[in-house]
Order: sequence, then C-alpha cells, then structure tokens
Amino acid sequence: MSSFKTIEWKDDRVLMIDQRSLPLREVYIECLMFEDVAQAIKDMVIRGAPAIGVAAAMGIALGAHKSKRKDKIEFLAELKEISTVISNTRPTAVNLFWAVKRMMNLVNENKDKDIDWIRNRLVEEAKKIYEEDISICKRIGKVGSELIKDGDTVLTHCNAGALATAGYGTALGVIRAAFQEGKRIKVIASETRPFLQGARLTAWELDKDGIPVTIITDNMAGYVMSKGMVNSVVVGADRIASNGDVANKIGTYPLSILSRFHNIPFYVAAPISTIDYNCPSGDQIPIEKRDTKEVTHIMGNKITPDVEVLNPAFDITPSDHVSSIITEKGITEAPYSKSLRALLG
Amino acid sequence: MSSFKTIEWKDDRVLMIDQRSLPLREVYIECLMFEDVAQAIKDMVIRGAPAIGVAAAMGIALGAHKSKRKDKIEFLAELKEISTVISNTRPTAVNLFWAVKRMMNLVNENKDKDIDWIRNRLVEEAKKIYEEDISICKRIGKVGSELIKDGDTVLTHCNAGALATAGYGTALGVIRAAFQEGKRIKVIASETRPFLQGARLTAWELDKDGIPVTIITDNMAGYVMSKGMVNSVVVGADRIASNGDVANKIGTYPLSILSRFHNIPFYVAAPISTIDYNCPSGDQIPIEKRDTKEVTHIMGNKITPDVEVLNPAFDITPSDHVSSIITEKGITEAPYSKSLRALLG
Repeated sequence: MSSFKTIEWKDDRVLMIDQRSLPLREVYIECLMFEDVAQAIKDMVIRGAPAIGVAAAMGIALGAHKSKRKDKIEFLAELKEISTVISNTRPTAVNLFWAVKRMMNLVNENKDKDIDWIRNRLVEEAKKIYEEDISICKRIGKVGSELIKDGDTVLTHCNAGALATAGYGTALGVIRAAFQEGKRIKVIASETRPFLQGARLTAWELDKDGIPVTIITDNMAGYVMSKGMVNSVVVGADRIASNGDVANKIGTYPLSILSRFHNIPFYVAAPISTIDYNCPSGDQIPIEKRDTKEVTHIMGNKITPDVEVLNPAFDITPSDHVSSIITEKGITEAPYSKSLRALLG
Repeated sequence: MSSFKTIEWKDDRVLMIDQRSLPLREVYIECLMFEDVAQAIKDMVIRGAPAIGVAAAMGIALGAHKSKRKDKIEFLAELKEISTVISNTRPTAVNLFWAVKRMMNLVNENKDKDIDWIRNRLVEEAKKIYEEDISICKRIGKVGSELIKDGDTVLTHCNAGALATAGYGTALGVIRAAFQEGKRIKVIASETRPFLQGARLTAWELDKDGIPVTIITDNMAGYVMSKGMVNSVVVGADRIASNGDVANKIGTYPLSILSRFHNIPFYVAAPISTIDYNCPSGDQIPIEKRDTKEVTHIMGNKITPDVEVLNPAFDITPSDHVSSIITEKGITEAPYSKSLRALLG
C-alpha cells in the first residue's frame, strides 16, 4: 500500500489529499458537508475514475450522516437531492454514477428502516466501497502483472495510480504488482497536460515507492517509442463502452495510434465498475469540456495570449487499438462485446 | 510583414525580441558582442531554424565589426574562433551551419582584402541573408498557399512563423499567404511543450495579424483530427536530410503518424537552406538534448518531483510520412532523394 491516503472517512468527515498541490505540497482537505465533496470532485482535488466513485459514495454517506431531517420522507427526498448534486459534478467517469446508484439502491431497498439505520448503513457501504476498491486494484495488479516482463519499460499516461483510486491503482497497480514480484521494470510517465497528472502525481507516487520513473512531455511519446525504449503501454479508463471502446484522459487515443504504429501492446487496466454495459460504443460517452484556464494558466501563471482554446478532458480509444483490458476478474481480449459481457457471468 | 521585428541589425548592435518573455511581455534584447548573440541562440531568446541562421550571420558580422585586431592574420584567426563559438550553440538546425559557412566562405574568398573591407562586407552579407530570408519566406508562402483551400483548418506545431525567421515565416508563411489571398482559414496551434512555442509564439503572432487561432495541448491533436476538425498539417523544419527525412520540433513525428492514420495531408515548409544535402537520412541528424529544467519548470515554477526527465528538442519524421515539402523553388514530393536534388538545378 501507499504511504499516503488518497481519501479517508474519519470520524464525521471525509479527508482527501489535495491533488492540485502535489508534488510540491502534501496538503489534506477536510470535507465537512456533502457539498464540499461535490466541489472537491469538480475542482479535481480528487480525480481518477475509481477515486471519484469512492468520493461519490462518501459524499452521499456524509450528506446522510449530517442530515437534520427527522421525517423519513423528507430525509429520503434530501438523499435524492444529494445524489443529484454528486452526480452532476463530472460527466465522463462512469464509476461516479455506479457508486451513486449502488448507494441509492441501498436506500431504496431499505426505505422501511428508520433514519438512523439508513444513515449508518450508508456510511458502512461507503467504507465497504473504499475497501473493495483497494482489493479490486490489488487483484487487477496481480492479474495484469503477467503481461509485464522482467526488464520492461512501461509507458503510462495521466495517473491511474493510488491517487486515482482508494489506493494501489489500476494501471499503476499492474506496475506495482510487477515491481513487487521482483521484476526490474521502469516507467515512462507522460506529463499529461493540462493538469499534469503524469508529471505531478504518477512521478510522485512511483518515486515514493522506489519505482524508477522518467517524465516526458506528451509529445515525446513518438520519440521514445521510435527509439525502442517502450515495451508496453498501460493506462487506466474513465469509462469503457460495452464494445470495448475506452474513454480515458485526453492524449490516450493518440498514444494508442502510436502504439499500433510501433507494434507496442496497449493495455487498459480498470475495475469492472468502469465498464458501462448500457453504453454500446465510445461515441455515446459524454466528453467533459473543462475550463480553458487549465490550458492557458500553469500554476496560476498565464502562458497564452487571449485566443480560442479547447479543453476536452478525455478522448475515445477505439476497441481495436486495445490489446487487452485488464480487470479484477481476468484479462479480456477482442472481441470485447463478448469478453466484457462474460465478466458478468 | 509582421508588426514586430524578430531580429534586426541596428547601428553597431543586434536587436532581438526576447521570445522567452512572449506573449506576456514584448521585450527587446541588445547584443553588443558576438558572445551575446551566441548566448541568445543557446538560451532560445531567438529560435527557429531560419532565424538562427540569420542570428548566426549577424553574430559573425558583429564579431568582425567589434574586432580590435590590426593584424590581418590575427583578425582572420579571430573570425575563425567566432565562427566556432557560433557553430557550437545548437546542433540540429542546419541553417546555422549554412549561414556560418556562407559568411566564412566570403572571408576565405577575400583574404587579400583589408580588414575594414572584410568587416563591412560581412555586415552587408548578414543584412543580405536577413533580406533574402524574408523574400524566401514570402515565396514559400505563395508557393504553398495553393495547398490550402478556402474554409480549411490547418494544424501547426511549434512556431515556424515570423518569429522563427527574419519575418513572415515558413509554415506560418503558407498560412499568412493563404489568408492574405482571402481564404477563410483557421489555425489550430498545438502548445508545444516544453518551451510552449505554439501556445506562446504562434498564437501571439497569428492573433496580432488577425488570423483565427485556437490553442490545444499537444495531446489533443488526436481528438481534433478524429472529430474531422483538421484539413491539413503544416510544420517547419530544422533540418531536412537529402532523402526527405525531416528533423523538427519534438512532437512533429507523432503528428505525422496521426495525420497518416486520419488521412490528413502532412506538409513541411522550409527554405532550401534547411536541406542538408550532405546528410543521407534522418538518423544522421544530431538531436539536441536540452536542459531538463525546461520540462520540470514552467515560468520559473517547479511542477515535478525530483525524478529522471528526458528533453530531446527534436524528432525525426520519415520522408514517407511527408505529403509535400514546400520550398521557395516549388512544391516537391516523393521520391525526395530525386525531387530535393532537382531544386539545386
């Protein structure tokens, strides 16, 4: 496990490491109200699909825990409002909706129980989602590490690490597991503009664990691949359509094309909760457009003149670019519409 | 022409706009000694292959102009030293060596003339290289604009504009010419980490000229191409091997792969002085590795933990990814070993 906590339920509040301040400052933020959790998701204090799922669950639990309603109907109505606020924070990562649904299903199935019972059960469930996420990531790591050979250099994009989950990570879970098995591996982390998750977060957490990591700017990926410096690419996912198309951090799709061109395997590591079985293909996945200030300003400093700027936060990698999808229930391969469905059995 | 001067010989000094401060501050730097010019090239006060060529020529002229030697042999020896210092500033852009060679050939052919004559002739020659560069860029623009259609959106990388040349630009020369012919075109500028030439310089100079420009981060190129938002890619070059392989700013090579994948034409615009006829192929072109601080710090602020960092400043695009090379003598196509050679005829 990592030496820090991405998110934690503590007494009657939710603590999060502020991922906007890393790696320069290790600051923790206290969420006292569910609105604080919603804002933290929006502002990317916490990010990464599985971590957002855990935060969403804890947000609902916090809202329930702090509710002053004495009337059951009013209490249930408030929970519904809370779940709507949490759901409206970010659109792409399906784990958020998955976690909200799981929490609200629990409420709906136990409407007859008293307010305190529901309240406590929701806090328990959020903690359970947290614990499950860690053990799922460890399973993903164990399953995926067989794809990583001794001596390999693995390129990863964004941060699909302990910081993107309750702990351990998905793509970085695979890397951690391979490293813990004694494989001498190296990681190349693309910096991942605009939010710099690679340069700031992935480099920080791998370095903390003693895993050798080299930072490149996103546009150096072609260079390192052409020099034979990359044995495989492993990334996370924010949502996987039922046909295997993958929404992940902007820049993943071009990496998949570069991998194909250089005959480098391209792996996606994600929990089954990231698979949206109701979504037939990638073009149905909503792509969040974030504030263009993320592009025009770096660490508060303006870098551009006042012109048009785009800031799509994700892109879609078509399933035929994906060599394997690594889940806690095993490694799946094309045709994904079949192999992903089989995970449910 | 542009409303600013990239570089200028003025009285007994060389003025340059400081490209490290743009777009926030329009600051000019005065070079009083040839060493100032060498340092300015090294530090990227001025950058872009043709502009570096002009700066190199002006640097030698400045050295000659300021020389205190009365003895011809000592004067010639000093000029040789100056040319070595200028040559050792940056390794990749061949225009630098081209300009040094042109200046020193002039010296060698006129060794019998007196010191003052040589001195004045070198200043004249540097000004001539400057003037020629502007008219060559305008010809490149005129030649290349036929490849740009009314309504097109052109993606460009780094800055191959007025700031990268004596004025007008190569890739941006093509865009300027098309715009001046009344074609309604739009430009997408990739920000070009680590030095941000796209976000800072290309966006600034196009905006100044009223040409619509949209900034993306480098890793968004796949996204905009997949959405059908890009009709062509036009970039500059730092050195073109005789087989048509192109050294250009890091990130150009992956753009060429993305262009191929999306069936988007990929054009290179450069003066003939960028073609290194003595270099058989791209793998013979030296790639400059710059200070990793360019990656780890943005605007003076550290963004990364203390881990390994790569910073190759250029990459090589193989000739078979290049749809056309646009020069002042016309548009060339594959096979480049033949068509580039024909430009000399």
